This record gives sequence, C-alpha cells and structure tokens, in this order.
Amino acid sequence: MNKLGIALVGHSFMGAVHSQAWRTVGRVFDLPVRPEMVVLCGRRKEAAQAAADRFGWAESTDDWKSVLLRDDIHVVDICTPGDSHAEIAVHALEAGKHVLCEKPLANSVTEAVSMQEAADRARRNGIQSMVGFNYRRVPALALARSLVASGRIGQVRHVRASYLQDWLVDPDSPLTWRLQAERAGSGALGDLGAHLVDLAHFLLDEEIVSVSGTVETFVAERPLPDDPARTGPVTVDDAALFTARFRDGALGTFEATRYATGRKNGLRIEVNGSAGSLAFDFESMNELHFHDAAEPADTAGFRRILATEPQHPYLEAWYPPGHVLGYEHTFAHELRDFVTAIAERSAPAPDFTAGLRVQRVLDAVQRSAAHHSRWIPVGEAQR
Amino acid sequence: MNKLGIALVGHSFMGAVHSQAWRTVGRVFDLPVRPEMVVLCGRRKEAAQAAADRFGWAESTDDWKSVLLRDDIHVVDICTPGDSHAEIAVHALEAGKHVLCEKPLANSVTEAVSMQEAADRARRNGIQSMVGFNYRRVPALALARSLVASGRIGQVRHVRASYLQDWLVDPDSPLTWRLQAERAGSGALGDLGAHLVDLAHFLLDEEIVSVSGTVETFVAERPLPDDPARTGPVTVDDAALFTARFRDGALGTFEATRYATGRKNGLRIEVNGSAGSLAFDFESMNELHFHDAAEPADTAGFRRILATEPQHPYLEAWYPPGHVLGYEHTFAHELRDFVTAIAERSAPAPDFTAGLRVQRVLDAVQRSAAHHSRWIPVGEAQR
Amino acid sequence: MNKLGIALVGHSFMGAVHSQAWRTVGRVFDLPVRPEMVVLCGRRKEAAQAAADRFGWAESTDDWKSVLLRDDIHVVDICTPGDSHAEIAVHALEAGKHVLCEKPLANSVTEAVSMQEAADRARRNGIQSMVGFNYRRVPALALARSLVASGRIGQVRHVRASYLQDWLVDPDSPLTWRLQAERAGSGALGDLGAHLVDLAHFLLDEEIVSVSGTVETFVAERPLPDDPARTGPVTVDDAALFTARFRDGALGTFEATRYATGRKNGLRIEVNGSAGSLAFDFESMNELHFHDAAEPADTAGFRRILATEPQHPYLEAWYPPGHVLGYEHTFAHELRDFVTAIAERSAPAPDFTAGLRVQRVLDAVQRSAAHHSRWIPVGEAQR
Amino acid sequence: MNKLGIALVGHSFMGAVHSQAWRTVGRVFDLPVRPEMVVLCGRRKEAAQAAADRFGWAESTDDWKSVLLRDDIHVVDICTPGDSHAEIAVHALEAGKHVLCEKPLANSVTEAVSMQEAADRARRNGIQSMVGFNYRRVPALALARSLVASGRIGQVRHVRASYLQDWLVDPDSPLTWRLQAERAGSGALGDLGAHLVDLAHFLLDEEIVSVSGTVETFVAERPLPDDPARTGPVTVDDAALFTARFRDGALGTFEATRYATGRKNGLRIEVNGSAGSLAFDFESMNELHFHDAAEPADTAGFRRILATEPQHPYLEAWYPPGHVLGYEHTFAHELRDFVTAIAERSAPAPDFTAGLRVQRVLDAVQRSAAHHSRWIPVGEAQR
Repeated sequence: MNKLGIALVGHSFMGAVHSQAWRTVGRVFDLPVRPEMVVLCGRRKEAAQAAADRFGWAESTDDWKSVLLRDDIHVVDICTPGDSHAEIAVHALEAGKHVLCEKPLANSVTEAVSMQEAADRARRNGIQSMVGFNYRRVPALALARSLVASGRIGQVRHVRASYLQDWLVDPDSPLTWRLQAERAGSGALGDLGAHLVDLAHFLLDEEIVSVSGTVETFVAERPLPDDPARTGPVTVDDAALFTARFRDGALGTFEATRYATGRKNGLRIEVNGSAGSLAFDFESMNELHFHDAAEPADTAGFRRILATEPQHPYLEAWYPPGHVLGYEHTFAHELRDFVTAIAERSAPAPDFTAGLRVQRVLDAVQRSAAHHSRWIPVGEAQR
Repeated sequence: MNKLGIALVGHSFMGAVHSQAWRTVGRVFDLPVRPEMVVLCGRRKEAAQAAADRFGWAESTDDWKSVLLRDDIHVVDICTPGDSHAEIAVHALEAGKHVLCEKPLANSVTEAVSMQEAADRARRNGIQSMVGFNYRRVPALALARSLVASGRIGQVRHVRASYLQDWLVDPDSPLTWRLQAERAGSGALGDLGAHLVDLAHFLLDEEIVSVSGTVETFVAERPLPDDPARTGPVTVDDAALFTARFRDGALGTFEATRYATGRKNGLRIEVNGSAGSLAFDFESMNELHFHDAAEPADTAGFRRILATEPQHPYLEAWYPPGHVLGYEHTFAHELRDFVTAIAERSAPAPDFTAGLRVQRVLDAVQRSAAHHSRWIPVGEAQR
Repeated sequence: MNKLGIALVGHSFMGAVHSQAWRTVGRVFDLPVRPEMVVLCGRRKEAAQAAADRFGWAESTDDWKSVLLRDDIHVVDICTPGDSHAEIAVHALEAGKHVLCEKPLANSVTEAVSMQEAADRARRNGIQSMVGFNYRRVPALALARSLVASGRIGQVRHVRASYLQDWLVDPDSPLTWRLQAERAGSGALGDLGAHLVDLAHFLLDEEIVSVSGTVETFVAERPLPDDPARTGPVTVDDAALFTARFRDGALGTFEATRYATGRKNGLRIEVNGSAGSLAFDFESMNELHFHDAAEPADTAGFRRILATEPQHPYLEAWYPPGHVLGYEHTFAHELRDFVTAIAERSAPAPDFTAGLRVQRVLDAVQRSAAHHSRWIPVGEAQR
Repeated sequence: MNKLGIALVGHSFMGAVHSQAWRTVGRVFDLPVRPEMVVLCGRRKEAAQAAADRFGWAESTDDWKSVLLRDDIHVVDICTPGDSHAEIAVHALEAGKHVLCEKPLANSVTEAVSMQEAADRARRNGIQSMVGFNYRRVPALALARSLVASGRIGQVRHVRASYLQDWLVDPDSPLTWRLQAERAGSGALGDLGAHLVDLAHFLLDEEIVSVSGTVETFVAERPLPDDPARTGPVTVDDAALFTARFRDGALGTFEATRYATGRKNGLRIEVNGSAGSLAFDFESMNELHFHDAAEPADTAGFRRILATEPQHPYLEAWYPPGHVLGYEHTFAHELRDFVTAIAERSAPAPDFTAGLRVQRVLDAVQRSAAHHSRWIPVGEAQR
C-alpha cells in the first residue's frame, strides 16, 4: 500500500485532535493509502518537538515552509489560527501538496478568494483541498443529509440553527487571541456561525442567498492574558444572529453565541419540510430526531435514531450498536474521506469553494449588521 | 336526555378529583345520559356539606346507607380508603346501584371476592360496576394497548414497570392511615403496585400467572400524626418488588416505592416484543414512545408520539394537537366510559373481576415475600 | 360570599376553554367572590343556546350589547376573533363591566390604543381589564419569572423564543378566517408571536425596544372553505421571525410559524443570563429547566424542575406532586388572578397597556419586514 | 521514561477496542511509564499478523505462552472469551506479568477463585491485576461514585439497574459462541449482568449480600453459524432478572436481556438515597442526572450534568466542555488507571477479588433461579 506523508501545522487544541484522528484513521478504516505522521510544524522549536513526541509525529520543525520542499510530504494539514491559513494554504498548494485547512477558511473574503483560486489551479494538477468542517462527519448529520437528499423531508421551509457556548459569561475571562479581530477574524460568527452555515449548506445541498444580521459585543473590555490588571478592547462579536433565505425559498434563523450559560457545545439544527422534519443537538451527538409526516397521525412522532447501526454513515468500521462515538471521531471520518478522495483523485467536500461560500455568508452578515440589519444578498461585493 | 343521579362517598383527594371529573365529563363528551351530581356522603356532617358546596354537589349526608334507598340515585362512586370498599360496594350493588369503586378494589382477597360475587349477581340485573384504575384512561396508554392489540409489538418478551414516589424519604413524615395495614391493606404494593399490575393486564390483555416478590419497610416507626412526640409502628410495606410471568411467557419486573427521591409520580412502563417496543412515563403523560422494529435499521428509533391528535383515544373532545392534558383528565375519560357502558347496558372495564385479579396478584406477592420470594402461582389460595 | 356575574362572548375553541375554566376556578381555588356563569353570547341564537347548554351557562343571547345593560353582569369575557375585540371591549368598559379579552388585544395598534384608553378611564372607576395571555399562568413559567425577578439568572443576555405549529404544512388546508388579514389581523405573528412577546416581557419584566423582522407567506392561495374547487389569497403571514433588543441590552430571537412539521404546540423559550439560564417547552409544560451558574462546575447542569410541588405558583390548590396539569389549567389560573384582582380592586396583569405594548412590537415587526428588516424602534409611530 | 511492554491476547471486538486504547492512552494522558504495543497473540498465525498490522502491534504470535517468557513483556491484556481467562491469567501472573483481564473474570466461581488466589500471590511480588469493567471509567459514573462517597445521596434505599440490548430478538439469529455455556459461561447474565453488579458495587462501595434470581431462555434452538439449515440448543440465558440486598439494607433490582427491542446498549442505573438520587443511561453516556434533596422544593429537580468539564474524572486530558466522549474512551481511562497503578506499585481497582465478588453474585443468581428464586446469600457455597 502506498504511503501518504503528512505534515501538521499547529499543535494546540485542533492539532491535538487532528493527531488523534491521524493515529486512528488507518487503524479503523480500510484506506487505499497509508497515512504516515511525518512532521509536526510549530512556531517554537521545543514546543513543537514536545508536541511531536506526545502526539506521535516522527519529526518536528519550526519552519513550515521547509516541509513544502520535501518529497515525502504529500499532505499539509493546517491547524493554526485563521490569520495564517491563506499564506500556508496557498504556498502548500503551489508546492503541490494536498491541503486540509481548519475552518473558517480564512479571516476575510479576500483571503478566502485567493485560497479558492489556488485550490482551483491545484486541482487541475490532481492536488486536492478540503476545509475542516468536521460536523459534516457526525454520523447522525450525514444521515440527516441523506434523508433530505432522498426526499424524506420534502420541500424545506425552515432551518433553525444555533451554536451555544458559555465560556465568555464571566466578564473577567481573559482577552485571548480568539477575541481579537486581527487574529480570529471574527468572534462567535466565524468560530461557531461558520459551522452552522456550512451544515445548513450541507444538509439542504443548497445555498444561502441573502441574510439579515446582527452582531453584538456584550463585554467591551477584558483583562489582558499576560497582565490581568490591565484590560484591552474586545474587537470581535460575542454573539451573532441572522436570518437567511435559501435559494429555494426556505427561511433560516441562525444564532451563535458564547454567552449561553449552561450550554457547553450546543450546536443545534432543525429542518422543517413539507414531508418531515429533522432535529439534532451535538451535546447528544449520536442521536438524530426524525419526524416522518407520511406516518399516520396516530403513530407519528419524532423518532430518536441512535446513529450507531452498521447501516449508518461511517459506522461500518466502529463498534456494535449503542456503543456511542464522541467528538473526536468526526475527525477520523473527515480524514477517511479526505485520504480516500486523494487516492481516488476525486474532489473532497467541502472544498475551498464551499469554504469561500461560507465566508461570503459571514461577510454578508457583518455588512448587514453594519447597515441596521438590512437584507443583503450574499456575494454582492464580489472579489 | 335521561338523567343519571350520582352519589359520591368520600371527599378527600380522590373525592375532589372525581368531583372535577363529574363536573366536566358531560360538558366535554357527548354522553347518552346526563350525570347529575346529587349527593356527597362523608363521615362528618359539616365537612361533607362544606365539600358538597365546594365541589358542586346538590346535597350532602353523613349516612351513605340512606342514599341507597333513593330512587334518584343510580350510581354510587366510592372514594373512601380501602377498608370500607367492600361494605359500601356490596350494599350498593344489592340496592341496585351501579358502582364505581376506587382502587385497589379491597384490602384483602376475601373482601375482593365478595365484591366480585356481588358484582356478578348485580350484572344479571343490568347493574354495572367498575374499578377506578384511571391510568388505563391516559390517552397515550390507551393508544399503547391498541398498538399491542393490533400486533405492532409482536410477541411480548418483557414488561418493565415501576411506580416511583418519594414522599416517605423523610423518616419524620407522620404515620398516616396509608401506613397502617388495617386501613390501607398494604403500602406501596396496593397503592402503587396495583396500578402497575392492572396496567400490565390492560396493555397485554393477558394475566400474570405467577410471581416472586419482596416487600420492605425501611422505616419501622414513625411519629403519630396527632402526637408527633410519640411514634407508632409502620405496618405496611414502604417498597414492593416482584418478578412476574405472564400467561404467554413474557417476563415482568415490577417495583413500587415511596422512597425514590426526586421521583414524584413516576409511573413507568416499558414493553418489549418481537416486533416493537413501547415506553411510557406518567411524568410526561402526553407522550408514548414507540419503537417499530419493522422500520429499516437506519431510520428506526423510539418515536415520541404526542398523544394529543384527534385520532388518539379520548382526544376527539378536547383541544387542538399539542394542547396537552393532565392527570385529572384521566378521570373524565373513566367517567365517559363508565356512563356510556351504563347507558348501553354493556360491561365496563376494568370490572370487579379484573379488580379481583389484581388483588390476587398482590396477595401472591405478599405470600411469596413471606416465603423467601419463592415463585407462587397467582390464585393458588382460592377463595 | 358575593357573586360575580359573568357573560361570555364567543363559543368556539376559546369559548369552550374559558367555560371549563369558569366551571372549575371556584371549585378549586379559594376565591373572594363567587363567579356565576350567567349568559353566553353568540352570533346565532340556536348555536349560542346549544353552547350554553353544553358549557353550563344559565342563559344565552345573540345580542351581546343587551348584556351590558344588565345589573347582574359584572364581567364580560371576550373570546371572539380579533376584529371585534375593540368594539366589544370599549362598550363593555364604558358600561362599567370588567373585561377579560383574549389575545391578541386587537388587530391593529389603533384599535389597541382605543382599548387601552378605555381601560385607563374605566380603571379610575374601579373597573378592571386583562388580556388573556394564558401562558403567563403556566406554573413553570410563573416560577421562571420569579427566578428572574429574584436575580437567579443575573443580567439577561439572550432570549430565544419560538412558537412552532404545523397545521398549515398541507397546501390544501382551507382558507379559514385565521388566514384573512381583515379578520385575524395577522397570521402566525399575532396568533403565536403575540404569546412569545408577552412571555418575554413577563419573564424579564422588561420591554422590547426595537426589532428587525421578517414575515413570509409560503403558500399564497388556498382552497375556500365553502367551495374547495376555488382558491382565495392568503393575506396573512405563515411565519414571522424577528430579532429584538430589550431595554437593558438583552438580545432576543423570535420565530412563529405554522409550518414546523411535527411540532404541535411547541412554544419554547430560553433565557440566558450571567448567573443562570432557563428553558421551557410547552409540549412538556410541567417542566422548567434551570441552570444555576452558582453551582460548582462539577455538579452544575440544567435541572428539570417538575413544577407540581405545593410551593409552586397555583399548585397549592391542585394535586400531589407529579400529578401533572394540562393546557386548560392555565385558564383557571388566569381566572383566579382576574377574579381576585377585581375583588381586591387591584389591577390585574397583563392589563390592556401590556396588551398594547405587545401590539406595538408586532406592528414594528411588520413595518421592519416592509423595510428590508431594518431595525425599527417599538412605538416609533405613536398613536 | 521507562517502557512497559504489552502483549494482547485476542483480536476480536475487545482486542480492537483495547488496541485503540493502548494507541491513545499515552498520547493523551501524562503517564509515569510509556506503554509499548509489542505483541498480539491469536489462535491463527495469519489472522494474528493481519490484526497486528491493522491495530499497530509490532509483532504477532499464535503462542501466547511464549510471550510469558519474554523479558520485554510486562503486561498481558486478556481479550479472549471467558473459557480461557483462567488459564492465561494464572500462567501470566505466575510468570510475573501484570494482568488486565476482560470481564467477566471467569466462567465459574471455581475458575475465578483460582485467578483471585494467583493474583493475591502475585501481588506480594508487586505484580498487579485488574478486571476490565470499563463502565467504571465512564466519567459520569466516576462522578456518580464520588457523589455517593461524599454523602450527597445519603443512605441508599434503592438501586435500579438494567442492561438492555436487542440483538437476539430475531429467532433466526445464529448460535454463536456467546450462546453456548461451555464457551461463554452464561448469557445475558455474565455478559451484561456482570457489568451491572460491578457498577453497583462501585457506586455504593458496598456489596450485594443476597439475591433472588430468575433466568430465562426465550428461544431454545437457533441455526448453527456454519450450517444454518440445522439448529442447535441455546445453553445460556437470554435474560436474567434478580432482586438484591446490599450490606447496608439497600434493595436492588437488576435486569439483563438481549430481547429489549430498540434498546441498543441501554445500560441504565438509578440510585435513590435519603439525600439525593442519581440516574444514568449509557446511550447518553456523557450525562449524569443528579437530584439533590437538599435543594428547596421549588427549585429541586434532576439536573443533567454534562460530564465534560475539566473538573470531571478523566476530563483533564480531553477536549473543551461539551465536546463529548464515546464508548472507547472508557478503555483509555481504564488503561491510564492500570498503568499508573503498576508504576506506583499500588493495587488497581477492580482487582480479581472484586471480579470474584461479581462472579459469586452471578453464581448465586443462577442457584437462586434453580431454586424457584428463593433468596440465597452470596458466597454461601464457598470455593
């Protein structure tokens, strides 16, 4: 079996999760090529080496550009904050490396466009790219998409999506990079809202065409991480709310916040259609709730599908029914699909075009918010 | 429309609930006769009159025997503690009155037999009788029975029933009549377990034939209600657990307790069969959970049926879907069925024979418990 | 005890529910006066008489104005469609009758203002008025308000409210009065959204000051009820979505729809604050979910409070814990509060001023929707 | 850091899960020694080698005895069916290898006693042993134990445990080794019931002292796996039910079955005590429901603790709150504890004595079942 050499850039939360997925994917799934965990890249040499040891990478480096020159590296997996995505991804693609890039694709539409263009050019040479919207790989949500695609939901009327966390409720929580626009691009909008937008696109296989949005920063100043006695300005949104129209007329409500006290990772999405409905909450990620309107009224009801049957997406490789999966498994699924696409020379999804599409929606939300929430078509301000 | 004169005996909790049901039933359902709330009977004159005023009865009396002589009384509704059921019911039946008797039917099998015999004799004269197992009239449970009856569950393998309350957790809770064997007959067994047994008989349309039981009194002495400085012995069970076999081979587990901290009226029952399963919890009484094993594995799951559709039992007369019902409505349903049976000269269910059957099961549980939980056939010690 | 003579206007769904509540309230609660169900008013004589017989009213009439002249009538209870609320209410108030008016208060702000002014004048003469926002009387929601009021939720950041029904999913469902603007005023907005707005005002004790709204009619033409071969235009909204800002800075999202397949009466509201959160779903109306952020992290979690304890609002008069209540009980609670306020000569809540406030919010939503969802201050277009 | 050489015996379901845990544990947790995945043992050479390649073991062998002679092997991890546990474990312990043995410890009390004695002898030489009751390592259940231990539940009155699966509902499901007494020892009792007994011991830190049990085989003959046209006898139980008494007086109900249609891995346990209650269902394994009776009645309720906070057991090494764990993580936790105990020369739990204790309970259940469910003290028939 051929080997696929992997370089990982970044070793914080996402780097750790991707490492676990790289260690696992080939042990569980039948892959057409064998991924090799070759090198981990970080900004500081010692930290990178320690992470490589811990996470199981053969080598480490503090110079990500050097890995682009190596013949034994075929894939660059980007797990850094959003402000470096464009630079790394474009360079890697131009060097002929397949790229997996964490979401959101970039911090701005301009960056995202450059990435999408680089991905397009690379694809002509058989080089693939994908954005890390891992929630597409929750088995329950992959099942949800297949139910929509097969017509079980009918014409979609409503999408109701919220991503609720609560780690900023305390006003003394520090001003990390996630709260600084120059590093993170935006706040809850890009971090959480991006997932919701991609999921909605995924489930409906249809795009958002216009939005009316609101963003809010509840706590304007927070303590500096390195000097808690001083504060600095929060330059991203704490919460983002928007209403959306989909191409075929469905209406969506979206809410992303870090102030939903008691909600830890409450990514929820409900879809109502003329033939049925679907409901999901990540905090119970193994469950999909499905209402089939074709049922007689006296036995109809939302059924709780425990998406752990061998028939369910990705489950053929895992455990017997009811032996539930967790958050990290979505990344193993993502890598299975990415690696398989590379081997089969097909385009993985979501690609950078899909990532750019999400970026345009987020951008439209911000522009709408800046214009009293007026409805704004997505993509109005092109390139 | 003909009138049906009602006499109610007892005006505590059950008397209040029955009164609300009598006030309501003819206002909501189309009944073939019109019930008239004629007289309320109590032990003490003033209290009975106050209750009659409050609950809407035209008259009151402290002599229940006198009402048996009245031509304008057609129904006697018995809401007293179990130790007076047999006397009142037998007299009333012999006086040609239809009888609705609260559960459990009696405090002993001997009493229950005498009641069942009186009911049998009376029935030959067109006089009906019924036991007040109100939970049969929860729409979700009536639906459950119809699903079992129509084969949607297949061959039943397991019944899992528990009735969990917590009002005795505090050891200083007083020694009321419910904790005295001579008044209440038994404790959790007769008060809660009786409901479970009747429900199981109702859902499966099949009887328990043998049991292995355990009873337990956790707190042996409690303060006297009138003299809390002194205590008296608790002479009933605090909790009763038993395993049961049904006629066709299903296995049941039953548990009734007043020590399930945090469970308030947790009457739960689950039925597993070869073709499907049902699950119910009274604390969410408008919901029935139904698993249909005929569904393909990828979309199968317990569906939450909100039993508030016009197609559901008893719902034709109530509110639009989702406008949920409560505990008291089960009594209005019970009265609808009872009054209709009287008018149609048909036998209502559960009749005293069904009530006796429950009593025999409870009796077998107590005898098994007295014999190291040895399996005992129900009805072994006949009359 | 003094009597309070009641006249009911209207005998459809709301009329039936109010009748049940009038029959019940004095039988369960200790009231300072005794309500008498004197007369039911309808448009057609025979139908009104049949309804009076069924629902337990002593008399009937097809001339509601005549009852305003009667000395034995003290209260007028208005259960008609919205287009007649203003006329009946203003006349009744001017005739010195206390008025209970179903929601929404009126079909327009202009009408609502006239009603509020009439109510203000009447109050100076000790005449009370109230709007029938019955969901305030769900015990779990009354408890929720008390938790907010006592500071258990802290500073509110988010309100997330939706009212989901599904009875219009079928495009062949007929064009009833509820789908005609001239009768109903608006669609989901006024029927369902009004409840959400009032509840939010109630829970936070704070008003919505601006909105950004969207309304949508998914199915433009529907069969005429009397001539299904022909269709007519739907002139109200099928769904209404809006974002709101509260006076103290909280952000709200609101959604009302009749196209949420499988959701029957899904009135849901969640409140997130700096010290805790609350969540409620009417389909499980006896439950309030409360997260207390003051709990240590390892034992914190949303607790499911079964609001059936004697300590809970309105529960002192009902059944033991866990013996759950239903939809109709909210109306008995409403009447208890209304009757008590009349007897005590205090102002009941929500009064017509509160009803007008809701109306202004709905009006602002419609105006925002007509202006590309631009944010609009509530009450901008005053009187 | 010192290395710990691991040999795994068996490579079916449990072998795969343990392999994933061995690959993961040192990458996530800070361990005092580094486990090395040295050799995988199977019965057939090729299959063992293929599994070693797949699961990441350096070598393979078809001769488990040979690995006992190797100095680079310090741990033997036994993942074979129950009939070989005793032989492998006793040999390994006598060869000075630490042993992790899958549950149930053995197929009979006699075997279990021999293992426990070998473990006792080995421990004097610093050799540790543990039984693989992985559910103790569910963070929510580890939290549950700590709540019981710290007195938050008070005096325990009830334990209510069931382990519900449904893979035998189809009577044409084949006669695998799990249905043969000589391989599996028992059926649902040893496979599922063993987990329940160990968990109850773990949560209460107290033993079951007597039981009254029932076992049942619903389908007596099943198709042979290799020759489906013929059938063979099922020699184990399909379902096992028992009532238990704990040392301090608590009553337990236990049910294990493979016929609970629609329940996939429904391991449920509820504990009711004088000060609170706990409830858990593995199908929602990240949640613990805790009722604190010390709360005022108006805000008391079962709280859903999402056991994913850094304060929760094992969570310090994983993901942010709400990023839920799955089934396999319980094995990584088990290995963390086992490896740490070895390094610290302390006794891991549950050791073979605890495993024997479970075995004695299962044995008592079978003997009680053979004696009409008569109560039988656990351990009556010693060695």
